[in-house]
Amino acid sequence: MQDLKNIKNDSRILGNSSAKLRNLFLRTLASTLIKETNTILLANDKDCKKMSKSDPMLDRLMLTKDRIKSMAHDLRIVASFQDPLGEVLEQRKMKQGMLLQKVRTPIGVVAVIYESRPNVTVDVVSLCIKSGNAVVLKGGKESINTNLALVRIIKKCLKKLSLPEGSVVYIDSKDRSAVKELLLMDQCIDVVIPRGGRGLINFVRDNARMPAIETGAGVCHLYIDNKADIDRAIKIAHNAKTQRPSVCNALDTLLIHKNSAKQALDKFSDMFFESGVEVFADSQSFKILKSGYANLKKAKKEDFGNEYLSLKMSIKIVPSLDSAIEHINEYGSGHSEAIASKNNKNINEFLSRVDAACVYANASTRFTDGAEFGLGGEIGISTQKLHARGPMGINELTTYKWLIKGKGQIRK
Amino acid sequence: MQDLKNIKNDSRILGNSSAKLRNLFLRTLASTLIKETNTILLANDKDCKKMSKSDPMLDRLMLTKDRIKSMAHDLRIVASFQDPLGEVLEQRKMKQGMLLQKVRTPIGVVAVIYESRPNVTVDVVSLCIKSGNAVVLKGGKESINTNLALVRIIKKCLKKLSLPEGSVVYIDSKDRSAVKELLLMDQCIDVVIPRGGRGLINFVRDNARMPAIETGAGVCHLYIDNKADIDRAIKIAHNAKTQRPSVCNALDTLLIHKNSAKQALDKFSDMFFESGVEVFADSQSFKILKSGYANLKKAKKEDFGNEYLSLKMSIKIVPSLDSAIEHINEYGSGHSEAIASKNNKNINEFLSRVDAACVYANASTRFTDGAEFGLGGEIGISTQKLHARGPMGINELTTYKWLIKGKGQIRK
Repeated sequence: MQDLKNIKNDSRILGNSSAKLRNLFLRTLASTLIKETNTILLANDKDCKKMSKSDPMLDRLMLTKDRIKSMAHDLRIVASFQDPLGEVLEQRKMKQGMLLQKVRTPIGVVAVIYESRPNVTVDVVSLCIKSGNAVVLKGGKESINTNLALVRIIKKCLKKLSLPEGSVVYIDSKDRSAVKELLLMDQCIDVVIPRGGRGLINFVRDNARMPAIETGAGVCHLYIDNKADIDRAIKIAHNAKTQRPSVCNALDTLLIHKNSAKQALDKFSDMFFESGVEVFADSQSFKILKSGYANLKKAKKEDFGNEYLSLKMSIKIVPSLDSAIEHINEYGSGHSEAIASKNNKNINEFLSRVDAACVYANASTRFTDGAEFGLGGEIGISTQKLHARGPMGINELTTYKWLIKGKGQIRK
Repeated sequence: MQDLKNIKNDSRILGNSSAKLRNLFLRTLASTLIKETNTILLANDKDCKKMSKSDPMLDRLMLTKDRIKSMAHDLRIVASFQDPLGEVLEQRKMKQGMLLQKVRTPIGVVAVIYESRPNVTVDVVSLCIKSGNAVVLKGGKESINTNLALVRIIKKCLKKLSLPEGSVVYIDSKDRSAVKELLLMDQCIDVVIPRGGRGLINFVRDNARMPAIETGAGVCHLYIDNKADIDRAIKIAHNAKTQRPSVCNALDTLLIHKNSAKQALDKFSDMFFESGVEVFADSQSFKILKSGYANLKKAKKEDFGNEYLSLKMSIKIVPSLDSAIEHINEYGSGHSEAIASKNNKNINEFLSRVDAACVYANASTRFTDGAEFGLGGEIGISTQKLHARGPMGINELTTYKWLIKGKGQIRK
């Protein structure tokens, strides 16, 4: 385990550095990544060789010249965003005449535990340094050579600009015992963000002594109302399910009002069968689908509330808007939920009563994304309610402090 | 352990109730408390009788007609505050034309674990219901009869207004095993807030599966600069230490720049000795104080970073502003810190580099308080950096959700 003794101190130096210097770091890193493309690709090649050519993870792991260019491009975009630090969020005179200000500050030290994709290393460093935070990285073992090469370049750039090299630390270890050790270091780390599967998230929640933000688990529903434009609704469902099925904001379960069921499922069959989607249908929808949809199974209990991350989904017919909302609040993970309806009363009922980070009316759940929301990238999508909910961008990596300026006031 | 199965559902009903109804509940509770004063005092008397007459906690436990009147008064004040729910915190058009809104919502179910003072029961319910949250209460065993009487009245008022009675649950159990069980119920509880000593806070942090907000631990410093108005500085120190020594925002350690030491400690001796303050002095300040300050001990290592909660304090002489800031960042608990100085450069350096929830220039740390900050009461003072920092009022008991209204948009 690397030494984290100085990281708090380094984080304070970083947090008090100028926005100009932090942005210059991001631009310097962008150009250095381009310059060192060959070194990075060489390291990445070592990682890729360890993976079977048929492994679907290989594509996530592999870097190319274009992908490095795209990393550099993203760094320059983050550099162009307004500095979040020092913003006065509230200000008032206190009764006794002191000036009270609530001012945005960095969180301090952010730890991110993630899997496979090496571009996450650069993304996370970019958002953390932009917001004045030191960062502890623990990436997946598949991408270790790539990550170490990237971190070497990152540290070189920090040093070049006289920013503390120690404000980016990579935990170079292959097992969970290092993660466990990390999770006990609440004296050094202010927050830990796990990015990965349910197993990692649970491990972090159960072992972390510092606050953790759970991200990414997305069990997403679309409810097709009895007052829906069915054509439009099925197009939304199809996009949410098939446009990128491996991600957290992809559709998992379609709920259909009983009065819309026949018409919706007819259209559904045409579009979804062609895309190779396997369906787990409740008894009612099974009856309607069985004549025309070959890739069909009867849904079991566990097919609801399941995050598929693939071309699979479940379908349930519901008797009312109420039961759709109840189903979602019971089985959803608080990520992204949607209604397709033309009726404003039903839409508003759904938007206000569904308890999730992002609630959509007549749009695909695939839009849940920091860049799409205009937050300047994203370090994860929070499914908790504390601190940040939904996509977490630069501002969500900050906290605040209260400053009180007086003239000798004392409390009576 | 009471059944919490329905509390999520009850919290949703409460969260979607009108501000008018929630405020009416607060006013109804206020008048019912007054009406049932005798019942409450009778229950409180049972609790008080179990405590020794010489126990300093007795005063915190004991209710009187006036104290009940003051609870009712506070409820009416909270009722008069603006409704936090539904506020649109951000709004923009997304690239594809959807309307994106970030809207303030309740957190859901808030659990508060607290000790002794029964007025906390009413305070917590007041702030939680105002902000649309259901609440699970676990009070101290000393005040069990009072708390149960208060909760009975609270539930009667909820019922009268057809708000879900189940949205306020009191855990009627005397031991920590009930707390432990509660801390595992992350399916029912969104956040847990411990209000009490370090032991309780550590227990909650180590056992809670849901997010916890640590509150209250306050190791507070005042730094007297070399450019300070010494008279004013000592008055601030005296107020911070002696005005109410048992609370978290009271002064624990005085740091003095070496050039101000002689003058400051002379004035200190006069004021503090009279107030009966016991001093743990570092070797330099010990030398200066020993001739004129009888209530004096040599400071040990553990006298710094200690929360005294009594008329005791430590003193250290520092060679520079830098070393004062470093001392505070190492020994403070991130609660309330102060500088006394006439020099703006030094003040700004201190305000920006000290890492704490509340940082004061030339005012007493005793002002760290939700009501003083204009937050509508306080459910605790967070010493964490996530979600809320410093006093937590009504807004700090809310989260937000993202609402996205489209016309069939899909992601390309």
